[in-house]
Amino acid sequence: MIRTHEAGSLRAEHAGTQVVLAGWVARRRDHGGVIFIDLRDASGTVQVVFREEDTAHDLRSEFCVKITGSVRVRPESNENPELPTGAVEVVADEIEVLSESAPLPFPIEGDVNVNEEVRLRHRYLDIRRESAANALRTRSEATFLIREVLREQGFVDVETPTLTRSTPEGARDFLVPVRLKPGHWYALPQSPQLFKQLLMVAGLEKYYQIARCYRDEDFRADRQPEFTQVDVEMSFVDQEDVLRIGEALVARVWKELAGYEVPLPLPRMTYAEAMAKYGSDKPDLRFGQELVDLTGYFSGTEFRVFQAEHVGAVVMPGGASQTRKELDAWQEWARARGARGLAYVLVEPDGSLRGPVAKNLSAEHLEGLAATAGAVPGDAIFFAADRRHKALDLLGAARLEIGRRCGLIDEGAWRFLWVVDFPMFEPIEDDKGEQTGWHAVHHPFTAPTEESLDTFDKDPGSALSNAYDLVLNGTELGGGSIRIHRKDVQERAFAAIGLPEEEAKSQFGFLLEAFNYGPPPHGGIALGLDRLVTLLIGAETIREVIAFPKAASGLDPLTGAPTPITAQQRREAGIDAPVKPQG
Amino acid sequence: MIRTHEAGSLRAEHAGTQVVLAGWVARRRDHGGVIFIDLRDASGTVQVVFREEDTAHDLRSEFCVKITGSVRVRPESNENPELPTGAVEVVADEIEVLSESAPLPFPIEGDVNVNEEVRLRHRYLDIRRESAANALRTRSEATFLIREVLREQGFVDVETPTLTRSTPEGARDFLVPVRLKPGHWYALPQSPQLFKQLLMVAGLEKYYQIARCYRDEDFRADRQPEFTQVDVEMSFVDQEDVLRIGEALVARVWKELAGYEVPLPLPRMTYAEAMAKYGSDKPDLRFGQELVDLTGYFSGTEFRVFQAEHVGAVVMPGGASQTRKELDAWQEWARARGARGLAYVLVEPDGSLRGPVAKNLSAEHLEGLAATAGAVPGDAIFFAADRRHKALDLLGAARLEIGRRCGLIDEGAWRFLWVVDFPMFEPIEDDKGEQTGWHAVHHPFTAPTEESLDTFDKDPGSALSNAYDLVLNGTELGGGSIRIHRKDVQERAFAAIGLPEEEAKSQFGFLLEAFNYGPPPHGGIALGLDRLVTLLIGAETIREVIAFPKAASGLDPLTGAPTPITAQQRREAGIDAPVKPQG
Repeated sequence: MIRTHEAGSLRAEHAGTQVVLAGWVARRRDHGGVIFIDLRDASGTVQVVFREEDTAHDLRSEFCVKITGSVRVRPESNENPELPTGAVEVVADEIEVLSESAPLPFPIEGDVNVNEEVRLRHRYLDIRRESAANALRTRSEATFLIREVLREQGFVDVETPTLTRSTPEGARDFLVPVRLKPGHWYALPQSPQLFKQLLMVAGLEKYYQIARCYRDEDFRADRQPEFTQVDVEMSFVDQEDVLRIGEALVARVWKELAGYEVPLPLPRMTYAEAMAKYGSDKPDLRFGQELVDLTGYFSGTEFRVFQAEHVGAVVMPGGASQTRKELDAWQEWARARGARGLAYVLVEPDGSLRGPVAKNLSAEHLEGLAATAGAVPGDAIFFAADRRHKALDLLGAARLEIGRRCGLIDEGAWRFLWVVDFPMFEPIEDDKGEQTGWHAVHHPFTAPTEESLDTFDKDPGSALSNAYDLVLNGTELGGGSIRIHRKDVQERAFAAIGLPEEEAKSQFGFLLEAFNYGPPPHGGIALGLDRLVTLLIGAETIREVIAFPKAASGLDPLTGAPTPITAQQRREAGIDAPVKPQG
Repeated sequence: MIRTHEAGSLRAEHAGTQVVLAGWVARRRDHGGVIFIDLRDASGTVQVVFREEDTAHDLRSEFCVKITGSVRVRPESNENPELPTGAVEVVADEIEVLSESAPLPFPIEGDVNVNEEVRLRHRYLDIRRESAANALRTRSEATFLIREVLREQGFVDVETPTLTRSTPEGARDFLVPVRLKPGHWYALPQSPQLFKQLLMVAGLEKYYQIARCYRDEDFRADRQPEFTQVDVEMSFVDQEDVLRIGEALVARVWKELAGYEVPLPLPRMTYAEAMAKYGSDKPDLRFGQELVDLTGYFSGTEFRVFQAEHVGAVVMPGGASQTRKELDAWQEWARARGARGLAYVLVEPDGSLRGPVAKNLSAEHLEGLAATAGAVPGDAIFFAADRRHKALDLLGAARLEIGRRCGLIDEGAWRFLWVVDFPMFEPIEDDKGEQTGWHAVHHPFTAPTEESLDTFDKDPGSALSNAYDLVLNGTELGGGSIRIHRKDVQERAFAAIGLPEEEAKSQFGFLLEAFNYGPPPHGGIALGLDRLVTLLIGAETIREVIAFPKAASGLDPLTGAPTPITAQQRREAGIDAPVKPQG
């Protein structure tokens, strides 16, 4: 090492010690004949004092320097209790500039007020900021803790291929031309799903991997084309065993890195209950405001709008005092979500009901409404009346919006839960809302529950799957399922979603083939590592927990990737080689 | 769990215990009214006894079963001391077939004598073999130990992008078309080299990653298009610090998994010495037979063949008794390596020299030859006379061949060493052997040694670099270097290898740009994880330590990857989109 001490490690006990430090010039202050700099390295910052001006007056921010000097206790009045090294300073004898720095595109110290693209283009400067570096350090630590838990429980860390075969898993695959077999392409995996199931057939029993996954999706705010997944699979287990592993993982990470004892076992909620009460399959339990089902209450109403498959409500505390403009804004908000609007009733201080909807309701319906909806004087009641899933979806979103606007969310709370008993299939609808088929809610290897085993393909609409999601504060951390291990059940599942046998064979043939050889019952879970760490540290986007994230549209402002390729690269990669059609 | 115990965990102390087991039928033996099966799960095997024939007579190999029964101590004569569970057996009360197995393409138990492609196509059966599963388990454990060492030393595990920019690093890049920017391509990284250097500029100081890397190379026996690298980078260090980390890694892994205390510090040898003594930059120190330099000895010889830049020799103990056919085979061997042949002299029991070369040498040269070459009566002396590097290369290969043929290699030995002081550049020669330029021996970010700093670009041929390789038993485990952190030095290094400024900027511009902002001195190392584990467990190929390796030509016999793609995939991926040429 070219230094003897780390800057952030110096304390009063080091007084009198001769030290060699190396790091960056964080701040520089001239006080007449004395110059102070804050020297920063990965461990922290210490104040360095130069007695003679000439040795330090050329130093600028972010010069990389090596300093030889001695530690002394600061005069009492100059102590800085906010800095771990604030009791001392280093009196410099010698300084060597290891490398200079050009003027910075944005300051490293203090608040950064610059657009994200500039920060990403100079990500190597962005990461010099303490908060950015800490995000990466915490991610590293979280990853290690996860590995430690899984190893303690006997899991084997297995790397699966990333140059593999295109298999449809809901998103598009990234493709890679194969020079040695021109006209043929690898695909980058959307997950190690098929391989981890093969490892179960292989008898490995307990697999895990922190796996890079790839999805060629249209850009959305918090998506990246490559992301990382904590991928787990186990044999001879039931749902209970997998949930326990998931709980052990978050418990260890949150205990060590957030100082929070996750209460175990985590609460569980069926998908049906989550939808009914929260209008979401990932309910945010940090606040109440549960949805109310008024379908029965309004049965027989003459108000046309409420003659719907489902009529539900959610209460906004204090919402009766909203201005007309605020109430109109809710209509805008609802229309932006594709709804026609958001019907409401305001509960006056005297208990009477006001608003356009109130005028359309019968006296009986008005009479008990506030009590049935759980509203008190001063509240607003928002309604949705539509096909059930649409109404619940709108009310669930309204609930979250109410939580935010009314400050109901306990920002310091950690509310984990399992959502279980997902439907196995959901209807595919055409433009007119007519159902044309069924789609697997999780992937098509998800097993039905015991109760649905015999009937899932005859009555897909009511089939439940042995699938589960782990939810934290309204965000899905991950999910998994018990898999189908019986070939006959797998074939029935493919048939239910209308995947022709031939196509199933062509896409998943190797898994179906493997299932010929005594596959064990198995199941697993996958957690999104990027999102998990984002929530853990309270970051605003997953980009903060990724060392070199892509910006919008998958472009990397730092490297300039992607780029055009040369004609020679194109020729060599066999991109345009003719190939016989597959089949 | 659907079982109460693991099969391999049962011992005499479990006698009388009621157990539920789940696993695979490994072997089945009928003895009149009693059927024995060996039940195998990931923990091992236990013998199960069925009293009534009808419950078990349909069981075939590799059926997956659940067995309920009770443990009992075997009669003394029936104990199997070779099996950890050999003192007991399980008397089955109930058996449930969880899934059946078709007839196997090859047996799981016992030796497998089937070609590798068949095993890879059914890799999920191959891994049921204990040795195959153990290879993956050991890899998992080695990986964890490496992480543990690095974490203890304060390294941060950082994931770097795999969808990135094409940068030439000696091999071809795999390319990925980008749908969201048609006509543009990502490249899969050959290593995280540029990103880890950026992380040093970012002040992270200690980085590591177990990183997937990609090289589109022509197939060679022990290469895979994707492979895994233990990637390490450190700031404010000199070579000594990096070597210590490398040593700590192999020491921990070999101690824990091979029961071998690696003696530290590892021996070091300069590249020059390695070439002179072993004709290799990765010398196998498990045996002697060092090369002898006879250039001086033969100076002035009239034997035309020995009038060469370099004349060297290696001794084959007992080689004088080889038959004419065996000696001819050496000529074949040398020609297969591109040499004209392999001159030799045989030392007769009486000390006289025999063979065609002997006839061409003067009496004086014959007189002292055996002693100078270190040969004794009964030995053969092999010669190479050529350009120095060619002669040494041939002799180095001959030495290894001698080691193998004469059984000189101590197969149980672990001989680690560092090879240091590599040349910074090597000459590029055209077809006629004329030098046309210089090529960086390591990558072009490798720093010169202190001594070569001022002169490396003026005299590239004698410049030494601050690079090092870790070698075990004649195989390179990895290597690294102290990097160039000064922009001016980097530019001179690019100039020395004839990389035009414009091209350097276009390829590495973002790294050069980063070097504007106070880059720290830094260096690192990368170890090939696949190869490390292969050596550790004594496997024959790296494919044994990879869960789902590619076969020859990069094809995967299991999934059938790579495959043709559909016209729609091609269109959507923007593969044929027109794009303006780069520049």
